[in-house]
Amino acid sequence: MRIVVQKFGGSSIADPELIRNVARRVVRAKQKGNRVVVVVSAMGDTTDELIDLAYRVTASPHSREIDMLLTTGEQISIALLAMAINELGHEAVSLTGYQAGITTDHAHMQARIVNIDPERVRQELDQDKIVVVAGFQGMTVTGEIATLGRGGSDTTAVALAASLKADLCEIYTDVDGVYTADPRIIPKAVKLNYISYDEMLELASLGALVLQPRAVEFAKNYSVPLLIRSSFNECEGTLVGEVASVESCHPVSGVAHDLNVAKIGIFDVPDRPGIARNIFRTLAREQINVDMIIQGWVRDDRNDIVFTVTRGDLEKALPVVERIVKEIEASGFVYNDRVAKVSIVGAGMITNPGVAANMFKALAEQGINIEMISTSEIKVSCIIEEDQAIKAVGALHAEFFK
Amino acid sequence: MRIVVQKFGGSSIADPELIRNVARRVVRAKQKGNRVVVVVSAMGDTTDELIDLAYRVTASPHSREIDMLLTTGEQISIALLAMAINELGHEAVSLTGYQAGITTDHAHMQARIVNIDPERVRQELDQDKIVVVAGFQGMTVTGEIATLGRGGSDTTAVALAASLKADLCEIYTDVDGVYTADPRIIPKAVKLNYISYDEMLELASLGALVLQPRAVEFAKNYSVPLLIRSSFNECEGTLVGEVASVESCHPVSGVAHDLNVAKIGIFDVPDRPGIARNIFRTLAREQINVDMIIQGWVRDDRNDIVFTVTRGDLEKALPVVERIVKEIEASGFVYNDRVAKVSIVGAGMITNPGVAANMFKALAEQGINIEMISTSEIKVSCIIEEDQAIKAVGALHAEFFK
Repeated sequence: MRIVVQKFGGSSIADPELIRNVARRVVRAKQKGNRVVVVVSAMGDTTDELIDLAYRVTASPHSREIDMLLTTGEQISIALLAMAINELGHEAVSLTGYQAGITTDHAHMQARIVNIDPERVRQELDQDKIVVVAGFQGMTVTGEIATLGRGGSDTTAVALAASLKADLCEIYTDVDGVYTADPRIIPKAVKLNYISYDEMLELASLGALVLQPRAVEFAKNYSVPLLIRSSFNECEGTLVGEVASVESCHPVSGVAHDLNVAKIGIFDVPDRPGIARNIFRTLAREQINVDMIIQGWVRDDRNDIVFTVTRGDLEKALPVVERIVKEIEASGFVYNDRVAKVSIVGAGMITNPGVAANMFKALAEQGINIEMISTSEIKVSCIIEEDQAIKAVGALHAEFFK
Repeated sequence: MRIVVQKFGGSSIADPELIRNVARRVVRAKQKGNRVVVVVSAMGDTTDELIDLAYRVTASPHSREIDMLLTTGEQISIALLAMAINELGHEAVSLTGYQAGITTDHAHMQARIVNIDPERVRQELDQDKIVVVAGFQGMTVTGEIATLGRGGSDTTAVALAASLKADLCEIYTDVDGVYTADPRIIPKAVKLNYISYDEMLELASLGALVLQPRAVEFAKNYSVPLLIRSSFNECEGTLVGEVASVESCHPVSGVAHDLNVAKIGIFDVPDRPGIARNIFRTLAREQINVDMIIQGWVRDDRNDIVFTVTRGDLEKALPVVERIVKEIEASGFVYNDRVAKVSIVGAGMITNPGVAANMFKALAEQGINIEMISTSEIKVSCIIEEDQAIKAVGALHAEFFK
């Protein structure tokens, strides 16, 4: 019998009426002859409300206690969804992360799943039950409750699907699937029927946050087929799988943009081995995620290093950078948080030379200045002025999806 | 080093400000040189709100899922209280019922604690931490989350105190302690400094619900000294202990009343062995709690049996009684839900003959008709008309606390 794992995000179960809707959808999958495991997030804004409550108690909550607090959100969801499924005459059983056999490491608020023992879930499936599992959480080997960090429910779903050798992992969200660009700003954007893990990874990390990058990585490593679809309609969605799309006549699968970007430049960095390692190890130790890194041509034994961080990390990054500048005897640093990143992603780029050039041409024709460029095998990203981001996405979509 | 278990109810931690208050009180106990374990309920009306949420999803939630849902309430409380204690510079660690080693039986929504393994709690105390434990919950041996039923946090606190061989279990609530009568209706009522377990048990089950009867029973069986006091002031409270009060010059410790009473009478019950057993076993199987039972003098091989239930159980009880009446061939039944129970409780009664007579005299002088009487060694209860309850309590308090 086929095993299907379905994951529903917080907006899909934000109130009792929506929970009943999800229950009906889950039961339909069961009635089609599948064994069904459902993973849910916390209802609506519950997680934010709980965090707010914590900060009303203390300005500096310990991360262990934040995890103790936040995991209640998913526990409420699983109980209510199991009740709603039972109400429809199908047997359901809710399981916390711990009960579902999910073991994590000890990094509170950003734990990683280290093992899943799917025994209990299997037993319940064998008894013909629908199993409802709390996303985003697990237990350490020492019995502490830990969360996987934001978006961790996607990872829970994929990891459970992998451990159960599920036939499909359906990610229900509030969009119909993955589009060639954000349909809210590009009305001509079209939904992709298929996309490869690698393309999805690039799109996810580029701000088209339909799926958490960690979840996609997990799916790729364990070859779990993902189907991204809307919980509010019956659209087919986008399948994420192993092979790059061969049917597509487009070298580019999608155009992504990300406004949550700030850039920092360090001037006149001495050209010594290990300097870059020094800079970025220091930033990593302060939990600052660096995205793009550009190092120019060395002149006079010195060069500039420019990199980007999320705007949320900027405030934390600046004093660290100031310290680094002194340590390495650079001449100074600047920053700009009014920039954006636009990217094109497509496995077809590998075999289509000139795609990057077409991107630069399309931007130039709109008078958009490119401040930084970064490329990978299936992606080209440009940092531009924030104000020009939407115009840039429009131009790029028009260029690659004629 | 002394071990103190402190229990705070939902009204004591209803918002972040109150949680910080409780944290300060906990820290004071720690600073006095105690090892401190804190047991908390869900904040304010959280439990009722969660139950309401469940009924908005389904009219008939499964009790297993209700437990999964409700236990989040206490989990939120422990996380927030631990944060507030940490904020004050003392190390705290929150533990769910499961993490605190509390094992229950499988009776969801009314589970009983079958075992406590205090190892983890001890370890944390040994590391000089304040341990914050979720009340009202535990885990079955098969790994299911179960709740102890309403007021179960009292039981958690007492059971933990027993297993840790604590020197004192403090129950913080919204009243200053146990009074000779409800001070809201008898302004002259005085707080008792000391009361025995047995007296407390009678008072608790008589509607003076400062403490859950199950918790008192537990404390009695394991000789855990209880101190009932207010979380909103520094009053001394009432100590509940082993020995009956000998200092008191009053044979009666308190006057209690209970308006949550309905009486049911079955007429002309055949006088056969096993008939009473039949009636009350049937009611027990339907989860209907019977309080007072009166059986009069047998005449013509028949007699009347009158008993009381809570008003909430009346609707459930009536069809059962109707069935019983047919089965045992009684002549019929009547009920009245406009009655009240007034009681006097006191270990001193055993050695003071005539206390019951004085009670009946005091009621008669006020023209109050007694409909049922029930006595135990340390208690006399009378069922009277609901409208006369407050007048009755006033008369009894004046009689016994001159």
